[in-house]
Amino acid sequence: MQIGMMGLGRMGANMVRRLMRGGHECVVYDINPASVADLVKDGAVGAAALEEFIGKLARPRTVWLMLPAAITNRVVEQVAALLEPGDIIVDGGNSHYHDAVDQAVRLQARGLSFVDVGTSGGVWGLERGYCLMIGGPDAAVKHLEPIFATLAPGAGAGSAEGGDLGTAPLGYLHCGPSGAGHFVKMVHNGIEYGVMAAYAEGMNILKQANAGSEHRDADAETSPLAQPQYYRFDIDLPAVAEVWRHGSVIGSWLLDLTAGALKADPALAQFGGRVSDSGEGRWTLKAAIDTGVPAPVLSSALFSRLTSQGESEFADKLLSAMRYAFGGHVEKPKA
Amino acid sequence: MQIGMMGLGRMGANMVRRLMRGGHECVVYDINPASVADLVKDGAVGAAALEEFIGKLARPRTVWLMLPAAITNRVVEQVAALLEPGDIIVDGGNSHYHDAVDQAVRLQARGLSFVDVGTSGGVWGLERGYCLMIGGPDAAVKHLEPIFATLAPGAGAGSAEGGDLGTAPLGYLHCGPSGAGHFVKMVHNGIEYGVMAAYAEGMNILKQANAGSEHRDADAETSPLAQPQYYRFDIDLPAVAEVWRHGSVIGSWLLDLTAGALKADPALAQFGGRVSDSGEGRWTLKAAIDTGVPAPVLSSALFSRLTSQGESEFADKLLSAMRYAFGGHVEKPKA
Amino acid sequence: MQIGMMGLGRMGANMVRRLMRGGHECVVYDINPASVADLVKDGAVGAAALEEFIGKLARPRTVWLMLPAAITNRVVEQVAALLEPGDIIVDGGNSHYHDAVDQAVRLQARGLSFVDVGTSGGVWGLERGYCLMIGGPDAAVKHLEPIFATLAPGAGAGSAEGGDLGTAPLGYLHCGPSGAGHFVKMVHNGIEYGVMAAYAEGMNILKQANAGSEHRDADAETSPLAQPQYYRFDIDLPAVAEVWRHGSVIGSWLLDLTAGALKADPALAQFGGRVSDSGEGRWTLKAAIDTGVPAPVLSSALFSRLTSQGESEFADKLLSAMRYAFGGHVEKPKA
Amino acid sequence: MQIGMMGLGRMGANMVRRLMRGGHECVVYDINPASVADLVKDGAVGAAALEEFIGKLARPRTVWLMLPAAITNRVVEQVAALLEPGDIIVDGGNSHYHDAVDQAVRLQARGLSFVDVGTSGGVWGLERGYCLMIGGPDAAVKHLEPIFATLAPGAGAGSAEGGDLGTAPLGYLHCGPSGAGHFVKMVHNGIEYGVMAAYAEGMNILKQANAGSEHRDADAETSPLAQPQYYRFDIDLPAVAEVWRHGSVIGSWLLDLTAGALKADPALAQFGGRVSDSGEGRWTLKAAIDTGVPAPVLSSALFSRLTSQGESEFADKLLSAMRYAFGGHVEKPKA
Repeated sequence: MQIGMMGLGRMGANMVRRLMRGGHECVVYDINPASVADLVKDGAVGAAALEEFIGKLARPRTVWLMLPAAITNRVVEQVAALLEPGDIIVDGGNSHYHDAVDQAVRLQARGLSFVDVGTSGGVWGLERGYCLMIGGPDAAVKHLEPIFATLAPGAGAGSAEGGDLGTAPLGYLHCGPSGAGHFVKMVHNGIEYGVMAAYAEGMNILKQANAGSEHRDADAETSPLAQPQYYRFDIDLPAVAEVWRHGSVIGSWLLDLTAGALKADPALAQFGGRVSDSGEGRWTLKAAIDTGVPAPVLSSALFSRLTSQGESEFADKLLSAMRYAFGGHVEKPKA
Repeated sequence: MQIGMMGLGRMGANMVRRLMRGGHECVVYDINPASVADLVKDGAVGAAALEEFIGKLARPRTVWLMLPAAITNRVVEQVAALLEPGDIIVDGGNSHYHDAVDQAVRLQARGLSFVDVGTSGGVWGLERGYCLMIGGPDAAVKHLEPIFATLAPGAGAGSAEGGDLGTAPLGYLHCGPSGAGHFVKMVHNGIEYGVMAAYAEGMNILKQANAGSEHRDADAETSPLAQPQYYRFDIDLPAVAEVWRHGSVIGSWLLDLTAGALKADPALAQFGGRVSDSGEGRWTLKAAIDTGVPAPVLSSALFSRLTSQGESEFADKLLSAMRYAFGGHVEKPKA
Repeated sequence: MQIGMMGLGRMGANMVRRLMRGGHECVVYDINPASVADLVKDGAVGAAALEEFIGKLARPRTVWLMLPAAITNRVVEQVAALLEPGDIIVDGGNSHYHDAVDQAVRLQARGLSFVDVGTSGGVWGLERGYCLMIGGPDAAVKHLEPIFATLAPGAGAGSAEGGDLGTAPLGYLHCGPSGAGHFVKMVHNGIEYGVMAAYAEGMNILKQANAGSEHRDADAETSPLAQPQYYRFDIDLPAVAEVWRHGSVIGSWLLDLTAGALKADPALAQFGGRVSDSGEGRWTLKAAIDTGVPAPVLSSALFSRLTSQGESEFADKLLSAMRYAFGGHVEKPKA
Repeated sequence: MQIGMMGLGRMGANMVRRLMRGGHECVVYDINPASVADLVKDGAVGAAALEEFIGKLARPRTVWLMLPAAITNRVVEQVAALLEPGDIIVDGGNSHYHDAVDQAVRLQARGLSFVDVGTSGGVWGLERGYCLMIGGPDAAVKHLEPIFATLAPGAGAGSAEGGDLGTAPLGYLHCGPSGAGHFVKMVHNGIEYGVMAAYAEGMNILKQANAGSEHRDADAETSPLAQPQYYRFDIDLPAVAEVWRHGSVIGSWLLDLTAGALKADPALAQFGGRVSDSGEGRWTLKAAIDTGVPAPVLSSALFSRLTSQGESEFADKLLSAMRYAFGGHVEKPKA
């Protein structure tokens, strides 16, 4: 079937390619003409402006947006102004599910359907297929099923089981009304933060397993290492990550990627350690707080990222100021 | 080759079976005669007492222990007293790696080798193979390689890659001197706690996604839910766990098990929520603390387990006592 | 000066008493007539209905609300409908500062001023005075200064210092525009959660300092205590809390209360350990998340409370389900 | 009475001065002769070498050590070699209580008493008095009571209450056998970390309360601020810290110091934000883990310090590596 895709970054462009491989017709648009041209070369129908993009779509139109969360709301309004009753807007980006809940109400009043599709799979989705978490009205979701089936991994991938879980074993799931897709994807990303941090912390402990062989200051500002004989292991991190992939309890796709990254460069020298967050982890935590769910692991993972962004600096200065005030402790310089 | 296995619980018995399938000769012993008898039926050589067990082993003997951490040290001493120079003791249990470091020194003085083998795979290891993290002297580890190769998943399982990571792609790895195997397994389990908690917290958030449809008290002791319209999702947890297995970033073996458990019983009614810990998570955290490694996610996961065991009760009572003291807040009864 | 107080619970009633002691005229109203009668006995002017209450106030009227957060917004609307331009509504409750920001905009359009006053001091405020964190337009705040000065501890209490901090040494502070008062009070309470939890966790550790003298199971589901000789202290908790009040770094008013509570009953037997939260801790954390501030301590304190309310049950069941799935671990029953 | 003090740093020197003011005779020694000379000027008896120091003490001798934890054990051995049965060694430093437990056993065999005295009060102790947490045999503790009574704040300070708490209201407490003093002091410092972090996190939130007025990138690597209208407060941090000192629930000595530091320099420009830890927080956490006590707040506070020391760098790099691997996310440079 035909679909219009707007926002041709890493995710959007690859999704178009996967859809075209699956026999779908893709009309594409991006503010960057080069991104459009690339996909036209691969067989997509390109558009140079929003109006042209909408004009090339047959009714009922489906416009799928893959945009940064910060601008999605605005673009939804622009697109909606050009659509007609019966048309569908799909938001496949990392938008806040609140927006989906609110947009659906506004668009429904104008006869438009809003479908939010949490899309996981990253740059590997083109080959692996994307995991799709879908929210929206039944009719619109049903209408788009051929698209979802193509984007998702499908029956061939992984150990799909049972039929009573509906389409879940195929890699896509209608999770509920508008907002439910982004909500489930949001929690997916919250979990992702926690899982990633668990590996990162563990690997960091392994990296320090040789601390007993290293020099250590002996002053009142440095905590002593009481039993250095227990910290004399020179662990091969890439090999450990690899061995854990084979038969251990913690095998996972993220571990596969971790092993690959460590094998490529055990020192991870190309990275500085500033870990971004795109909002999903924050929203997950806010949902946990609103509904009273303890989420100490997910919050710890988020806060570690924020700290890596430099956001604890003032708090840290204040701690040093207190230590100076009560104990005369003079701060050591940063390494 | 021949190996003696002592401790025939869930782990030990299955390892014997896998070894016998691989053509090895297994002499087995357990304080529970029925456990011995079961394996004798399957082809193992049984022993009714420790001395008989040792006596049935050809030199150089290998005694592999699969025992609870709390008694391993004592049994190592008993076994060592019956062995001779050149013999090998393997500890495959969840022992503290400190003990391995210390045991190795003591046993080496008596001409014995101590090999610690962190063993992951659980009840699935019989079929999947076990992931083995090995510490000990080179000669002893080399001698045991046929055993390790049989216990581990081997080349057929998973996407093994590269040869420069040694045996890691086969599922076993010599991680360093005595203690290194348990150390790496310890951190593996620490990570496991974190990964498990990430899924559990996320699923708990999904479960509460319908809070806006439920009644809520309006008193000064109950935090209000400001925007109930954003919490009206009735999420199908088994289906979500299943869909995440197909193409998402958080696919993992633990997620596979989670999906299975939720499919079998979405309410998890057979469980009460008291989560045990067997020590590895605690030791991981102590190693992190000793070496100065921040581990907020791993510690949060551990503390959640301890709290589930009732260990925060006094702290909680004290918080209620403070609230009563400054604000006259009368405690609500536990649900 | 004259003030109308609505909401005569623990906080509201005592504030009226302190104001009357300071020579102010208080008109009071509550849906519970007994609460009104009590204060009338003490000299307040009582009202039996909202209209009567408003009617007894001279213009420009000041209506100070001390209500649960869950109903404050609604009552503000009801009161505003009876007021006239130039009148002032004060919200002294634990309301979300978002509401104050929004209410101020709405009320300003009707010529009314909205002043939010975060009020700390609990049941002790009558004697100690209340710490007031104030947000709102300059004119209204200035108009109410005699009220603030009476409610606050004033110069006599504590070691007030400097004049360049304005009225802060007197115990009240105009923190900024509408919402700023509740915002600062919200963060105050967030800190309060953290400080309380720090004492509670520490006291819990002291309580377990004798663990090495107690029996401990030796099974695979119980983490062993490796060095019992280091945990044979029978600590007198009330005495420790008391000694810390005298010269230690952690002396505080909350410690004073803790010492009092432990002295009254070292076992805290009247408490069950369900710790309520009234919303402020949650909002603090949401503000931290919105603005990207790491708050691991404040969030840990909040999550411990939520867990004490039973909110981690499903997550805990899922952890047990996973342990059973991979390791065959059978859950121990809850104590 | 006479006492020998060895280790004349910030703490030791001031304790000598307070003891001399109280009429006690102090023999003093330090490897830094200038430190000795300073106190001789103030009336102390100085010694230029360890043997001379011991030689100047009348029997039964009391040698009080105020040394960095990393060297205390070694010095205890050196001192013990010069003492005779009936003599007392006091360790008033921030030593690990394990050492006190072990030292007491070793020294008792030689007829010496070991008393561990956790000493809180910092640079203010000279004037305020020190809070003393004491472990050791009854006789030795009794013998030293005049010293403790002088060092502690005494009855005049604070709101001492009740007699049934023994000497606790005077600011010193015999907490139990050897090790109990350091154990209680260790937990005191663990709590201190938590309390300090609570204030620091809260102040950091207040500092960011104006985030809605600031520019923010709108890209996929930056979490959007959805409701900037709620973050337009320009909070005066020194004034807020000051007002909280007067009647609020979170009044404390650490808040007094915080207010002082912020008043002196609201930007805390002299500090870089590297927060040291001297070991006590780590040991508290290890004790919590050993005894199964959940300590999420205390651990979060510790880990924030470790992170400020740069110890999460490798973990952070690994997180960025994973994000690059699954999503092609290119790391933003550190600010």
